[in-house]
Amino acid sequence: MTTTSANPETDAMLQARYGDAKALLNGPHSAVIDALLSHRSVRAYADTPLPEGLLDTLMAAAQSASTSSNMQVWSAVAVQDAGRKARLAALAGDQAHVAKAPLLLLFLADLSRLRRIGDAQQAATPGLDYLESFVLGIVDAALAAQNTVVALESLGLGCCFIGAMRNKPAEVAAELGLPPEAFVVFGLTVGYPDPQREAAIRPRLKPQAILHRERYEIPAETEQQLVAEYDGAMHRFQDSQGMPSIDWSRQMMRRVGSPEALMGRHCLRDVLNKLGFKLT
Amino acid sequence: MTTTSANPETDAMLQARYGDAKALLNGPHSAVIDALLSHRSVRAYADTPLPEGLLDTLMAAAQSASTSSNMQVWSAVAVQDAGRKARLAALAGDQAHVAKAPLLLLFLADLSRLRRIGDAQQAATPGLDYLESFVLGIVDAALAAQNTVVALESLGLGCCFIGAMRNKPAEVAAELGLPPEAFVVFGLTVGYPDPQREAAIRPRLKPQAILHRERYEIPAETEQQLVAEYDGAMHRFQDSQGMPSIDWSRQMMRRVGSPEALMGRHCLRDVLNKLGFKLT
Repeated sequence: MTTTSANPETDAMLQARYGDAKALLNGPHSAVIDALLSHRSVRAYADTPLPEGLLDTLMAAAQSASTSSNMQVWSAVAVQDAGRKARLAALAGDQAHVAKAPLLLLFLADLSRLRRIGDAQQAATPGLDYLESFVLGIVDAALAAQNTVVALESLGLGCCFIGAMRNKPAEVAAELGLPPEAFVVFGLTVGYPDPQREAAIRPRLKPQAILHRERYEIPAETEQQLVAEYDGAMHRFQDSQGMPSIDWSRQMMRRVGSPEALMGRHCLRDVLNKLGFKLT
Repeated sequence: MTTTSANPETDAMLQARYGDAKALLNGPHSAVIDALLSHRSVRAYADTPLPEGLLDTLMAAAQSASTSSNMQVWSAVAVQDAGRKARLAALAGDQAHVAKAPLLLLFLADLSRLRRIGDAQQAATPGLDYLESFVLGIVDAALAAQNTVVALESLGLGCCFIGAMRNKPAEVAAELGLPPEAFVVFGLTVGYPDPQREAAIRPRLKPQAILHRERYEIPAETEQQLVAEYDGAMHRFQDSQGMPSIDWSRQMMRRVGSPEALMGRHCLRDVLNKLGFKLT
């Protein structure tokens, strides 16, 4: 007896996700889950204009995500002005698609709203001074952003997270006129995918490398084997995409091998302090 | 001419979300977006057992979320053992539903995997010492978690984020046997909702309070008006749920009004240092 997913497309997506021809889903599934499995980052956009009212829809989806203690310590800035997009693209490692996408959404960890409410009520708000509150802001922004992604992909749109918005956070904050204690965690480019340059599902580590049962335990040799397999899967993916071929593990070591490889983000703590976050 | 959403259920969900009988979606929408709009936190679970293979499905969904530079600096621990759930519930502000949910998923910011890969390759990994890498871990964990939420809700399951897992992070890390540089950002309780105690959609601030166009600009009086309206919407919600009635803005001021109100999380930075995060 063989067990397979009800839907052959689901299996194809899983095989792409895990870079493994044997990857099958034996667990429950749904059309929504198929939509999640089909995610890929889109960096090439068609000229098609965005649908009217898109931001209203995306905000409703984003705000429907959970938010820590209902604090809602996040904000968004929607940028469509060509000049501003180009300047932000230049600040984010000169990524061309940041300027070309019809919409650039910036997701902010934003403690400033509660600070303003406190000031208006003459209430002291020392709780906002702690690293914990910064963490709340990042979590809230990320949950909202992921709902945004799921929503826009269901409309046939594509997107790409732009973590490089943290390369020069002070300059980004100045460009957007942010108040103190607001910080762009990442950007999200949004547009219809260019059908001529279709993006592919990128493989991930096998779930055994990520998921633990009851306690965090993974034998060293098991983990090394999973990483070696994944290096292989990424090579096959890179080859299929005409990308330069490099072990994932080696690429990661470059990424964390020096402060300079962080592209300015090794100064994040100092910059955050300058942007008003106390991070106590 | 009136414009309304194609689906009256969509409008009902939006009206609940914004606590406003006039809230209508004029933008594009989809079945997936309806699923997002219907989110509510579930704290009461039925005894129904979880479907076989659920964790495989949830991990495939979670891993399909974007991850910063494909670094995958997150992990999950799935807890189903009754004793462990009870101990973790006690550490997380004694929330009964944490012990009662059939599954407790912990989402970790996890720099330890890349550190181990570096050690195995005799590669120095100083990039992991920076606050930036901690931020990467939180973002990765949150994006994965939100996809998990969307996936499980599409299967008729419900969930609740447990931020109180940060009340005593060192004790939580010890209970789960975490290596250095792994940290539980939050938990997620999972189970079938108790049909006798149906959860309601909680209102949020109007999108005008959260979303800015081009630059972060909101007149003080506009913001104060939006906060006052939201205080009213939350009162109506609290009354409908038999919850104690309190202004949202006042509740927030209590939440950030003293270090003690952070329930132990004002020590987060010190605890993270002890857990091996340098946060440079």
